[in-house]
Amino acid sequence: MKRIIRVNTRTGEIKESIATPEERRYAGRYYIAKVLLDEVPPTCEPLGRYNKLIISSGYFADTNLSTSGRISIGGKSPLTGGVKECNSGGSAGKKLARIGVKAVILEDIPERDQTRVLYIDADGARLIDAPYLKGKLVSETFELLRKEFGERKGFICIGPAGEMKLYGAGIALTDDKLEQVRYAARGGLGAVMGSKGIKAIVIDDSKVVEPDYHDPELLKEVVKEVAKILREDPKSQNRRKYGTLDILEMVNKLGFLPTRNFSSGQFEYADNFTGPAVAELIRKRGGCGRSGTQCVPSCTIMCSHVFPNEKGEKIVATLQYESVVLLGPNCGIGDVDAVAELNRLCNDVGVDTIEIGAAIGVAMEAGVIEFGDAEGAKSLVRQIGEGTYLGRIIGNGAAFTGQAFGVRRVPVVKGQAIPAYDPRGLKGNGVLYATSTMGADHTAGNAFETVRYHDPLSKEGQVRISRQLQIRAALIDSMGVCLFIRPAFIKNPDLLGALFKARYGWDLSFKDAKHIGVEVLDTERKFNELAGVSEKFRRMPEFMREEPLPPHNVVFDIPQEELEGIWEIEMDPNIF
Amino acid sequence: MKRIIRVNTRTGEIKESIATPEERRYAGRYYIAKVLLDEVPPTCEPLGRYNKLIISSGYFADTNLSTSGRISIGGKSPLTGGVKECNSGGSAGKKLARIGVKAVILEDIPERDQTRVLYIDADGARLIDAPYLKGKLVSETFELLRKEFGERKGFICIGPAGEMKLYGAGIALTDDKLEQVRYAARGGLGAVMGSKGIKAIVIDDSKVVEPDYHDPELLKEVVKEVAKILREDPKSQNRRKYGTLDILEMVNKLGFLPTRNFSSGQFEYADNFTGPAVAELIRKRGGCGRSGTQCVPSCTIMCSHVFPNEKGEKIVATLQYESVVLLGPNCGIGDVDAVAELNRLCNDVGVDTIEIGAAIGVAMEAGVIEFGDAEGAKSLVRQIGEGTYLGRIIGNGAAFTGQAFGVRRVPVVKGQAIPAYDPRGLKGNGVLYATSTMGADHTAGNAFETVRYHDPLSKEGQVRISRQLQIRAALIDSMGVCLFIRPAFIKNPDLLGALFKARYGWDLSFKDAKHIGVEVLDTERKFNELAGVSEKFRRMPEFMREEPLPPHNVVFDIPQEELEGIWEIEMDPNIF
Repeated sequence: MKRIIRVNTRTGEIKESIATPEERRYAGRYYIAKVLLDEVPPTCEPLGRYNKLIISSGYFADTNLSTSGRISIGGKSPLTGGVKECNSGGSAGKKLARIGVKAVILEDIPERDQTRVLYIDADGARLIDAPYLKGKLVSETFELLRKEFGERKGFICIGPAGEMKLYGAGIALTDDKLEQVRYAARGGLGAVMGSKGIKAIVIDDSKVVEPDYHDPELLKEVVKEVAKILREDPKSQNRRKYGTLDILEMVNKLGFLPTRNFSSGQFEYADNFTGPAVAELIRKRGGCGRSGTQCVPSCTIMCSHVFPNEKGEKIVATLQYESVVLLGPNCGIGDVDAVAELNRLCNDVGVDTIEIGAAIGVAMEAGVIEFGDAEGAKSLVRQIGEGTYLGRIIGNGAAFTGQAFGVRRVPVVKGQAIPAYDPRGLKGNGVLYATSTMGADHTAGNAFETVRYHDPLSKEGQVRISRQLQIRAALIDSMGVCLFIRPAFIKNPDLLGALFKARYGWDLSFKDAKHIGVEVLDTERKFNELAGVSEKFRRMPEFMREEPLPPHNVVFDIPQEELEGIWEIEMDPNIF
Repeated sequence: MKRIIRVNTRTGEIKESIATPEERRYAGRYYIAKVLLDEVPPTCEPLGRYNKLIISSGYFADTNLSTSGRISIGGKSPLTGGVKECNSGGSAGKKLARIGVKAVILEDIPERDQTRVLYIDADGARLIDAPYLKGKLVSETFELLRKEFGERKGFICIGPAGEMKLYGAGIALTDDKLEQVRYAARGGLGAVMGSKGIKAIVIDDSKVVEPDYHDPELLKEVVKEVAKILREDPKSQNRRKYGTLDILEMVNKLGFLPTRNFSSGQFEYADNFTGPAVAELIRKRGGCGRSGTQCVPSCTIMCSHVFPNEKGEKIVATLQYESVVLLGPNCGIGDVDAVAELNRLCNDVGVDTIEIGAAIGVAMEAGVIEFGDAEGAKSLVRQIGEGTYLGRIIGNGAAFTGQAFGVRRVPVVKGQAIPAYDPRGLKGNGVLYATSTMGADHTAGNAFETVRYHDPLSKEGQVRISRQLQIRAALIDSMGVCLFIRPAFIKNPDLLGALFKARYGWDLSFKDAKHIGVEVLDTERKFNELAGVSEKFRRMPEFMREEPLPPHNVVFDIPQEELEGIWEIEMDPNIF
């Protein structure tokens, strides 16, 4: 993976280069942070000429490492105004790696609106006018791309929301069978892609570029060992059975499940959404429904599933925990079919389920529709795709919707919606939302795993814990793997250095490898500070510190000064 | 003026105190800056519990000085996120001063929506529930207040836009006859008042508090001298004849009249809006139409007028230059009656004409309606008052409208719409918009007056000039007088110190008095920097630096570094 492809969307010029040894030091999320800091003016307009959309393969994207091939997509976020990196499944990541592409960088914006496809194969890249894709839903776009460019290509696209440059827009990816829709969902990156007039990216890996593994034998061994640990890990086994919904029951029990626009931490119909309940429904309904499917081809955990309707026809694949919570409990909707349909609609118009679920919750708070009104909620999502005035409000996310309707209880940090863990009930995630370079984003260091050994309601120690989790997440996002790989490196820390050795010939101790996470965060933080987007200025919403959250009636009470001190905390480099 | 009234809008508690000698050092804009810096957390939510709406009389509000009695209203701005002070005419300022009120501070927000009147007289203040005012237009509100509280009271209120907490909402004031509608228009302060559940403030000055002039005789002399200079000043005479529209012809000729969403600097129907054309129309139409009316009772310049329709019935009073340009040329509308009607509608729903004119221009750019569609524009303004989805978009201002419709040419700085001087054609105002503590706001140091002696297209020297103008504006806004008083102090600088001596007994040289302006700006800047709202992070929109403005085809080209250096410039303290 040494190819770096730069596309000037204004002139149409495409330049390809081979990564220098210096450039090879960075990958995935780290590469994105570097390009942003080196090339993008931090105060630039996110949808203007100077922002870049950066797609980057992680360090191990071209290996068979379990969960590898997840792709990093990033840029300056319209929602937060700072760094954004999204990490997504789908087959495109692996295919890009197979044709040796380290990074694709979309630069500038066209002078007039454009609907183009960027086509990339082993030999080069080209821009293709594709007016027939204009305004098409994501599912329609994938079908049309398959028809135009053939089976088994890698596809990345935006829906109408991205074309309209709505801040809630994400970037969709899929697999070889177009079964799953995955998302680089957060931060409004779909709008950035839309601003560049690129409707879709097609990756043709029918001809591959051979990878240059430093030590193929060692690599094989490590890959095997990681897979073995994951196979034997009970949490990974549960994920295969129940998907990410596995945790929902516990979150509800602990009382931090966002419910009715973050006004409660427990939902009376939570039982309808638990991992076992949904898995059983999938089994019972049969048809195309199935549990334990992959989000990337290399994955051995397989936490995805295909959720069918009563006739066994696919509604959506997959139903993730965060999507379910924001579109379900947070909107007072207790019917799993309605939530699945809402998720499908979000996927189709091309928006982040978290941002839009939060926006609908805010609209419900404002009385636009009632809490629990599933049909009303579906209409709101459809309207995003249609570009009605109300649709444009909702499609721009929770903060925008709050401003439109004068609502004070707006669950956002740095302009971005809070995901499915109320920070009052899981204070470690409160720290994360308030201090992460990404704004409110659970993937940047989810503290949920700590509830087993650390009281989530206590304010003690949470900042230190979050620092540790954020460093780990930054490393994993740079590796091009899934956070769920962590049991492997916890059980056998030596595997981490061995991976870098085998793939690149680098001699990194576990500590050195862990330090990559610190460097990623430092790079991102620098960009954010230059952009004026730091935890100093962009804080936890006031209602989180004032309104007690039932059932524990707790507020978020970690002092601002302690939050701001997070960057100074020195971590034990030996913990993963 | 020593009374300071604090109203807790949550508990309903009202506390009155007598200004300490320290507190008396600050007045008007300066007082607002001090309260913000001392009491309001800079990063607080503008519509939340910790922001305050501060109303303050200027240093000379209780004198007969020409133009005195203008009132300062301020708080943390929802639009810019920083300091905001608006300076407005109307009779309320003078009446507050007559009953000895130095400041009214609205604190906290009610737990539930409220529609209340704050009633203030010489003996105290009280909150009165007024559900009958809920949702009422500004003109309806003033009429109902007069009916309820009697003739010749001072009235301040918000329209439905403020009640809905739309960021384009202003605060309306009027005169004893309810003839003029004046506005503390900018920054979204109407939304702040709305968030506090205060629909209106009524000032009863039937019983007065005697002012404590230090040297009444000297004061009389100075007041007389100022009035004399203004009477003899040719520019002031023109203002009386032609109002603020006096400058429109020159601006169009020089080529920086914002036209069709800032895409041109000249408008083909500009002749319809010139000072002489409008004055002649008023004369010809007769009826209630008249030129040369007052915005505050003490004013000897009298740049206001009453603009009638063909039947001689009032459409709006007054038609100000900035309102006309943003609602007229900037929307491609060339008919003065249509613009007058748009202005009236804005006054009635309770929004800033500049912000909303800019927002309509952006909506026109997006194709929501066509440029020049006056009926469409009127419908948009009406919809703000009705709270339709589109109305809520427009009512939240230009930046919000730009985001809703994915428009890139959005004329805002620090989130606030650029007023009626394109910064590419009048670069001194570009400096002002980019560096002012107030965001894009011509009243903070309008460089228009410099076109007589400094090339507005040159980038040389503009930063220094703007520094000087901003200091002067900060002083004048603290004095509670109008910027148009400046010829008096230019002609006879000694009058400035004499005023402070006569009113307060303070021994201030001209230089000392001028330094008040520097202190005001330093205080505001400190608040803004703590809020993360500085010229470093919040910049001139990119299109202003890229898109040449016809007819001179110039861009805004003053380097960012030079802009950021403005605070370091030491000014000649002897220039006014």
